Amino acid sequence: MVGRFIVADGIEGAGKTTQLAFMHEYLEQAGYSVVVTREPGGTTLGEEIRALLLGHRHDGMALTTETLLMFAARAEHLERVIRPALGRGDWVLCDRFTDATYAYQGGGRGLALEQIADLETWVQGHLRPDLTLLFDLSVEVGLARAGKRSAADRFEQEDQAFFERVRATYWERALQNPNRYRIVNANQPIEAVRREVESILAAITL
Amino acid sequence: MVGRFIVADGIEGAGKTTQLAFMHEYLEQAGYSVVVTREPGGTTLGEEIRALLLGHRHDGMALTTETLLMFAARAEHLERVIRPALGRGDWVLCDRFTDATYAYQGGGRGLALEQIADLETWVQGHLRPDLTLLFDLSVEVGLARAGKRSAADRFEQEDQAFFERVRATYWERALQNPNRYRIVNANQPIEAVRREVESILAAITL
Repeated sequence: MVGRFIVADGIEGAGKTTQLAFMHEYLEQAGYSVVVTREPGGTTLGEEIRALLLGHRHDGMALTTETLLMFAARAEHLERVIRPALGRGDWVLCDRFTDATYAYQGGGRGLALEQIADLETWVQGHLRPDLTLLFDLSVEVGLARAGKRSAADRFEQEDQAFFERVRATYWERALQNPNRYRIVNANQPIEAVRREVESILAAITL
Repeated sequence: MVGRFIVADGIEGAGKTTQLAFMHEYLEQAGYSVVVTREPGGTTLGEEIRALLLGHRHDGMALTTETLLMFAARAEHLERVIRPALGRGDWVLCDRFTDATYAYQGGGRGLALEQIADLETWVQGHLRPDLTLLFDLSVEVGLARAGKRSAADRFEQEDQAFFERVRATYWERALQNPNRYRIVNANQPIEAVRREVESILAAITL
């Protein structure tokens, strides 16, 4: 049995964490061994890099620095967690992956998407997720939900126009690679989102 | 007046720090405004990345991660310190730069030099040091000197064969770009090294 690499991605407030918990439970009940992890982070070093990236001590960080730190955490994550898990035949459920770099550093902050593609190849080689669930919702709803949750991190503090560009970039990526993406309507109540997720998982675990 | 970017590089124990202090003094007396800095580091964020790289908490760090963290610190350093200083017409004296990545991550640890060249272009564009002083000395002498100084960091703990590969890679780089490198014999006593450095500085500040 070969492991599969499944990513949940999307703007803030989309309910990824709740749905990942459901996905984890669903897949385990279907008999798979599942590793749940997240980016940036997923390793001891990666979580320290995450703290540099999300905290406010380095608010003026250069865009190239931010992008390289994202990929540094990702390189560690791939080598220590993701590739070994897939190699064992486990399924990997990851909260955000390289699509988020395209969306946030590319669409949001304006780094050329070709430059991100260069680093993607440098770090990942041919490895791409088998499936990415894009939890899509309106920026207004997403920010309202995220705002209720906790103090804004270095990304959440950006304005609505930033998140509109992020959302649009996720859409472009999904439309360019329809086989690898499923767009989930995350404007709906949690239970309706869960049913969409369930039908996607049912299809791939047949 | 245009600033110049001068790097001091080489294996451990070469006396770079002492010679950089001398170079700083020499250039200021010659009337230049000088910024002295170091890699990995040179910025608040860069020094935090340095701590991740040199400390022992992450001894098993992947080579790709290590290399990306080096370039993340470098990107910040270039944007916050080096490019602004050169733009003001200051001279920049930097303790290690990208040659060290070729030597340590490439020669020492075995990352393909072409992969380092890709990141160099990604991060630096066309910017290269105007001059690199390679402080060369035998690995035995260098390690004996470095060992007297302090507890070994995550690089200093490597074995002699590692440093022989590092030294050989510095030599290859210097021989491939003779206009950009001066090899200083750092096996000599400090005072003799200082005179070699002085003659190099005298030639470029004529």
